[in-house]
Amino acid sequence: MRIALAQINPIVGDLQGNADKILALTQDVDVLITSELALCGYPPRDLLLDRSFIEATQQVLLELAQSLPPAITVLVGAPTFATPGRGQPLWNSAVCLQDGQVTHIFPKRLLPNYDVFDEQRYFRSGTTANVLSLQVGEEKITMGVTICEDLWNDVDFLDPLYEQNPLAELVKQPIDLLVNLSASPFTMQKQRLREKILQHHAQKYALPILYVNQVGGNDDLIFDGNSFIVNRWGQVVARAKSFQPDLLIVEFDPTQRDFPLAPIPEYRVVIEAEVWQALVLGLRDYAHKCGFSKAVLGLSGGIDSALVATIATEALGRENVLGVLLPSPYTSHQSITDAQELADNLGIKTVLIPITPLMQSYDHALAPLLQDSPPDVTEENLQSRIRGTLLMALSNKFGYLLLSTGNKSEMAVGYCTLYGDMNGGLAVIGDVPKTLVYRLCYWLNNLAPDPIIPPSILTKAPSAELKPNQTDQDSLPPYDILDDILCHFIDRHASRAEIIRQGHDPATVDRVMQLVRRAEFKRRQAPPTLKISDRAFGTGWRMPIAAKYVN
Amino acid sequence: MRIALAQINPIVGDLQGNADKILALTQDVDVLITSELALCGYPPRDLLLDRSFIEATQQVLLELAQSLPPAITVLVGAPTFATPGRGQPLWNSAVCLQDGQVTHIFPKRLLPNYDVFDEQRYFRSGTTANVLSLQVGEEKITMGVTICEDLWNDVDFLDPLYEQNPLAELVKQPIDLLVNLSASPFTMQKQRLREKILQHHAQKYALPILYVNQVGGNDDLIFDGNSFIVNRWGQVVARAKSFQPDLLIVEFDPTQRDFPLAPIPEYRVVIEAEVWQALVLGLRDYAHKCGFSKAVLGLSGGIDSALVATIATEALGRENVLGVLLPSPYTSHQSITDAQELADNLGIKTVLIPITPLMQSYDHALAPLLQDSPPDVTEENLQSRIRGTLLMALSNKFGYLLLSTGNKSEMAVGYCTLYGDMNGGLAVIGDVPKTLVYRLCYWLNNLAPDPIIPPSILTKAPSAELKPNQTDQDSLPPYDILDDILCHFIDRHASRAEIIRQGHDPATVDRVMQLVRRAEFKRRQAPPTLKISDRAFGTGWRMPIAAKYVN
Repeated sequence: MRIALAQINPIVGDLQGNADKILALTQDVDVLITSELALCGYPPRDLLLDRSFIEATQQVLLELAQSLPPAITVLVGAPTFATPGRGQPLWNSAVCLQDGQVTHIFPKRLLPNYDVFDEQRYFRSGTTANVLSLQVGEEKITMGVTICEDLWNDVDFLDPLYEQNPLAELVKQPIDLLVNLSASPFTMQKQRLREKILQHHAQKYALPILYVNQVGGNDDLIFDGNSFIVNRWGQVVARAKSFQPDLLIVEFDPTQRDFPLAPIPEYRVVIEAEVWQALVLGLRDYAHKCGFSKAVLGLSGGIDSALVATIATEALGRENVLGVLLPSPYTSHQSITDAQELADNLGIKTVLIPITPLMQSYDHALAPLLQDSPPDVTEENLQSRIRGTLLMALSNKFGYLLLSTGNKSEMAVGYCTLYGDMNGGLAVIGDVPKTLVYRLCYWLNNLAPDPIIPPSILTKAPSAELKPNQTDQDSLPPYDILDDILCHFIDRHASRAEIIRQGHDPATVDRVMQLVRRAEFKRRQAPPTLKISDRAFGTGWRMPIAAKYVN
Repeated sequence: MRIALAQINPIVGDLQGNADKILALTQDVDVLITSELALCGYPPRDLLLDRSFIEATQQVLLELAQSLPPAITVLVGAPTFATPGRGQPLWNSAVCLQDGQVTHIFPKRLLPNYDVFDEQRYFRSGTTANVLSLQVGEEKITMGVTICEDLWNDVDFLDPLYEQNPLAELVKQPIDLLVNLSASPFTMQKQRLREKILQHHAQKYALPILYVNQVGGNDDLIFDGNSFIVNRWGQVVARAKSFQPDLLIVEFDPTQRDFPLAPIPEYRVVIEAEVWQALVLGLRDYAHKCGFSKAVLGLSGGIDSALVATIATEALGRENVLGVLLPSPYTSHQSITDAQELADNLGIKTVLIPITPLMQSYDHALAPLLQDSPPDVTEENLQSRIRGTLLMALSNKFGYLLLSTGNKSEMAVGYCTLYGDMNGGLAVIGDVPKTLVYRLCYWLNNLAPDPIIPPSILTKAPSAELKPNQTDQDSLPPYDILDDILCHFIDRHASRAEIIRQGHDPATVDRVMQLVRRAEFKRRQAPPTLKISDRAFGTGWRMPIAAKYVN
């Protein structure tokens, strides 16, 4: 019995296009399994609130069923109407298509509602074990059908969040294998965790497991694929590609009740490599799914824009990236040569627009109002906003996607200008702390015989160059200290006292926490930020603005 | 027995300040009841994810209990740790303080998770009926304690969303009255609905009800207060102030098991008056809670900025509002005189900064890149971004809150410039459709002997004045048609076919729906928008950007 895992890259809302992608994978297999909500793409968000969208989904499901080759069974992830009753009107389902019809609907039972997940906003929980029995020729198998979170509530492994444990209920039934339709967003080192949990389940219940994950970038979320198969001994025996669509076809032997495959090597994690691939995919898919083929960004000669330019070049092709040099009187000669050298290394085009005349025009326009006030952050922000406005003019005129280049450390403490350098359709490295930005650049430079990022960019002191002789460390703690405090505060929800117990200076901790809180109004207006950590700014970060805080 | 309803205006996160507000209301009463989560302010959002925040809340609860006058019982809304078990770690509770201690914790049972509400992200549901028995002198009463949504699931009145019905369980117990701690955001005509539902419950079960609502603006949400009391015959017998803090003290007669008070008149709805008060409160509280006393905005001579200036003047005082005239070569003389006349009527200061020299500077800076391209929306956006940058310079230099002036119709179809006229800390009328903007202005003008908004602003054709002889209706359907389509599409989740069945031209419907969808990237970066409708852009609007749509 040939079972296929369809690791597709759906476009959210593109029902027909996604159905076509699924249909294209249905040749010469007996069973095909997609990822979670593959038909509408994950996450469909508030599209699910429109009844007409759900009706269209049911129509496309039926048409897909009618288009399938004979004798195939397809389990496709899709929203379906729940039976009449209390609660949300929809299920997040695995829909079974056979013989031109919808033959079974298996609702997801555990609905995550934390971080970026809002599934209880839309869906009602399924209440019974989902079992599918199949006859293919002489062979018969019985599958336990689960969807993503359904397998993440085992008391042996995790602190269980839900009352129900679908796995415990399923294993009471005579099933031959488990399938799991997932849409599990990438975060660093997550694949290890996924495999560990599913290996645990497989071994504990002597059940092989097929895990199908979505691939592709959808707004801030990046799905890494990495669908995999665990045999009944808890060994990973097949794994689909990372960060690419893939079709994994395996033979299931109903007699052995397992996959007759040898174990494969453990998933190898190189954080820089994972993050690089994730950001490349996230940028490429955001651009293409929004209809952009080209991108533009400001090249300051600093490390953040250097990294984003490199990611964009990989994602879109060198001929599709435009770097813009926007020097002011405070821009060093070194910055200009560094930016140009980077662009030359990448092979991307650059243009240069000096902003000094515009700074003078604003000074002149504002002089009657500001002449009695000493220069302050206002004048620094003006430079950033002139640059942001020029970049948006190029974006508007030529249809380029503007990329914003701020890193997570800056976004956290507000070391960035709203309507200035924060401008852009996508914050490519907004979830990458500054210290990881450096690690990524060193890693990139070590991949090739000659460095891509000019070494001077890596060794000089970071500076916004918004006033003479400025460096970031005039305003901020050193980045290794800042990032460690931020990691405790943001990623681990640590309190002031807990962070100080980690050895940090109390005054520095207070200052950083206050900066983070005061920057909330900026983050609320930031572009979507590609998520690579467990706690990213964006849809999973929901903080009040008009608020006071206790530490 | 004297019972007090404490309709306070809490600041989110300001535990001590909110506790002080509650404590100040505890004189000469036997029982005091606050609104939902009054101690931390509603909605506390992701502050609830920090354990140290919850611990601080418990500490302040205990201190509040110890500070109370003798013999008083206080029911205060606060997050508390749930008992060990599966699910979220917190309850959204009514905490009973008596004799210097926390004596009871009553968890909310129905947790809304739709629109702007994310309660299942944070809280676990209570599972049993919440009953509090009190002895005050000779008098004894038993209260059923409910929190907001707990009373909104009655099968007689609404389509029930939850399995449990706390009210049905409570009425099986020998209770004398029901209390409800609420944080129910303002939307147009909502008070009528609240009273209707609670009157229904009171009459059905012959039970008096005390309803305590929060008041004040918290980011995008405005709470209107309007706490009220229904007697056992279903009559409203007392009502607290709208849009202001209030303390409602009533005598409960345990013998009659009711409030010996005569019915009061029905709540009178004048939509313009409600919306006006809501926006004034929302703006004032956003400014003050963020630490601003002054606001700045661009005055274009158009109706939107005229209305926002009028709201800001009412909210902050004429001496605290600065209007900025930013004329371009496309600004008509009429616009300048209209803007100045409005400012004179309001008594606010204005400054004038012509943007023509800046337009020329940008043209010059961009000429090498744009000289071969015909003028298009790029040049229009540049004007808007010059204005936005100048306004932000004033905001930065003088600490003014910049108000953005776009209306809901514009925000819906993207007839606005990102990083231009969308700039601001708060979108004051971003949930007010253009046709309601007009109604509000006419209503305002009818309040006083002389019109505040110059009549010419109301009668001329709306125009962005970004190119010669432009009017909004060059690009958009007439606003009455546009707003009706938007109301069906956005507020009522209507499909294309349903909107066309309402009599609209199919091509116009298609165009509007497409404009709405294409503007998603702009809305994602918009400032918080004061919510007055059931479906506002902002925290309750969660749409994908990189998506395709079916109609």
